[in-house]
Amino acid sequence: MPLIEESDAASEVRAVYDDIKTTRQVDRVNNFWKALAVHPPALRRTWESVKEVMAPGALDPLVKEMLYVAVSVTNGCEYCIASHTAAARAKGMTDEQHGELLAVVGMANETNALANGLAVPVDDAFKTS
Amino acid sequence: MPLIEESDAASEVRAVYDDIKTTRQVDRVNNFWKALAVHPPALRRTWESVKEVMAPGALDPLVKEMLYVAVSVTNGCEYCIASHTAAARAKGMTDEQHGELLAVVGMANETNALANGLAVPVDDAFKTS
Amino acid sequence: MPLIEESDAASEVRAVYDDIKTTRQVDRVNNFWKALAVHPPALRRTWESVKEVMAPGALDPLVKEMLYVAVSVTNGCEYCIASHTAAARAKGMTDEQHGELLAVVGMANETNALANGLAVPVDDAFKTS
Amino acid sequence: MPLIEESDAASEVRAVYDDIKTTRQVDRVNNFWKALAVHPPALRRTWESVKEVMAPGALDPLVKEMLYVAVSVTNGCEYCIASHTAAARAKGMTDEQHGELLAVVGMANETNALANGLAVPVDDAFKTS
Amino acid sequence: MPLIEESDAASEVRAVYDDIKTTRQVDRVNNFWKALAVHPPALRRTWESVKEVMAPGALDPLVKEMLYVAVSVTNGCEYCIASHTAAARAKGMTDEQHGELLAVVGMANETNALANGLAVPVDDAFKTS
Amino acid sequence: MPLIEESDAASEVRAVYDDIKTTRQVDRVNNFWKALAVHPPALRRTWESVKEVMAPGALDPLVKEMLYVAVSVTNGCEYCIASHTAAARAKGMTDEQHGELLAVVGMANETNALANGLAVPVDDAFKTS
Repeated sequence: MPLIEESDAASEVRAVYDDIKTTRQVDRVNNFWKALAVHPPALRRTWESVKEVMAPGALDPLVKEMLYVAVSVTNGCEYCIASHTAAARAKGMTDEQHGELLAVVGMANETNALANGLAVPVDDAFKTS
Repeated sequence: MPLIEESDAASEVRAVYDDIKTTRQVDRVNNFWKALAVHPPALRRTWESVKEVMAPGALDPLVKEMLYVAVSVTNGCEYCIASHTAAARAKGMTDEQHGELLAVVGMANETNALANGLAVPVDDAFKTS
Repeated sequence: MPLIEESDAASEVRAVYDDIKTTRQVDRVNNFWKALAVHPPALRRTWESVKEVMAPGALDPLVKEMLYVAVSVTNGCEYCIASHTAAARAKGMTDEQHGELLAVVGMANETNALANGLAVPVDDAFKTS
Repeated sequence: MPLIEESDAASEVRAVYDDIKTTRQVDRVNNFWKALAVHPPALRRTWESVKEVMAPGALDPLVKEMLYVAVSVTNGCEYCIASHTAAARAKGMTDEQHGELLAVVGMANETNALANGLAVPVDDAFKTS
Repeated sequence: MPLIEESDAASEVRAVYDDIKTTRQVDRVNNFWKALAVHPPALRRTWESVKEVMAPGALDPLVKEMLYVAVSVTNGCEYCIASHTAAARAKGMTDEQHGELLAVVGMANETNALANGLAVPVDDAFKTS
Repeated sequence: MPLIEESDAASEVRAVYDDIKTTRQVDRVNNFWKALAVHPPALRRTWESVKEVMAPGALDPLVKEMLYVAVSVTNGCEYCIASHTAAARAKGMTDEQHGELLAVVGMANETNALANGLAVPVDDAFKTS
């Protein structure tokens, strides 16, 4: 798949790249966006959604990055694990926090399998939450 | 699958149930453990691991519960989604935090698929993180 | 989705149902086949493949059923977990074997996540196996 | 991610490495453990669980390794497929057994999808197993 | 989880419900949107994206619905399988097309597992596509 | 894993290779089949099924290839994404169609997660489809 470099980007793509750099206060756009730029409507729509979802809100940005890592690890998405682990570190994730994050993700994948395998019925107490 | 009720539990199982109730300060054991109790060594080993992994540490317990929800949603484990969403609420997760948690998990599942589908190469900048 | 009962089955479907009952030495066809019978070519092709793959060979039939359970648990397929757990029990799986099977499946799901999350490079020693 | 080599390991990590080598009667520790060693509590806890789960019991060790391969293939975990396929071969898995193992795993993934897609209701006969 | 009925919806939510009904030319909103309405920003953002992605374009709407079913079956999402299978039928999917759709999805899940299990290297001929 | 080249193939394998080349009107066999050829019964059975499932029918071959890509992307199978994306292009998929295909797959993975996370009950209207 081609990557659309900033110097080769049409104005529609360039505008998204510029917004990514401004929003994230970085000086380069990472490969995910350069690959997605082959489909400009998908680039714009995906960036607008990511920008909105990952903005500070009721959850802080580092927690959001760690949630992103948890999903990416569970799906085994190599690119996403690399990029969101880097983003979490840039937002202050320590080695110890990374270790605990992976421990929770590993344990959750284990007990998800056990709950499936045992066909555990949902407790009444959990049905109203 | 049978559920081993507390009143029917052998002493090895009863000891685990008691530790769950004491550690979590709850007065009942949820169905996951009652189902796992058919295999006492698995019950003991799984509980010891969950207890260690979910204890307060470099990450706070609510963040750990939300990571658990993120994995469970990605795997589509109905029981685990119900039980860990309830646990997160018991630890203070608000409606707004829940909404943002699910938004991040949804977005991560989407961009995981896009990164896979486009076979995006990992940026050199991410390789040393 | 409708289930095609034996009494309503066209001859093409009936022939597959009869072969299932003869091969497995059972007196009823389970719902999976009755649902698939809406698409007779898929019914025939799937049964022929399952029959060939699950026949005794270099692996014994109980091991094959347990492998089927391991995949079904990992995918969280409720129907498949129920039907293949029942089939494994019918072939002699004990409670203790079931407990160990689920323990291995749970552990594998956990370490799969850890290996992904840590981006562990494959050892040279494993590359020639 | 760094790999902690045996010569650089702190005593807590070294003790786990030594136990891995003794238990498995091998003279090197594979990369999974060297990567996990960045987080010593996770290294210790994971190894203790793997050691207990993979020990001979009601299922023989080769069957356990094949179950591990089945899960790893279903999750698409490249590292885990490579390491557990090598481990299964070291425990005597033949080419023919490997072929049958993969055939069952492939078929299970296919019929899991079909059962999901058809929303097949669980047979009453399977509910008491 | 609560479902926000149309009669109870605040104006922000009501506006989205109205747009869903107008765009799809239906007289009711399905449960997915009523559940998502607990988080109004997620409701609006998700609907805007779904509306744009599922609109007629280079692919016709029925093909898009069948792709949606393929993903939902692979993930084992019961709700999504039910809703998008119904949507595909409403757009004209025949029984025979449904049968072929599921057959392709089943086969793809099987060969994905085989390609993973065999660690097949990507052909040079596929690298430039 | 070894790849069985055409020049080294035993007659049973050679016959399958020849049928693949004739059916697809290509002059080489891709690596998937060369890897599977280590297990000749699996090679033959898998090819016969793929040949039948992917033949023109109620769905046209390009739609079938795009469904294959959708599943492969969802599973994160690198080999399968590469090979079936190439096959779809060879059957006429345009850049714009590819962009829309990935957009639908991404969106479906997102809303699958949201539907799971919110435990949305299936609408009565969808139960009879």
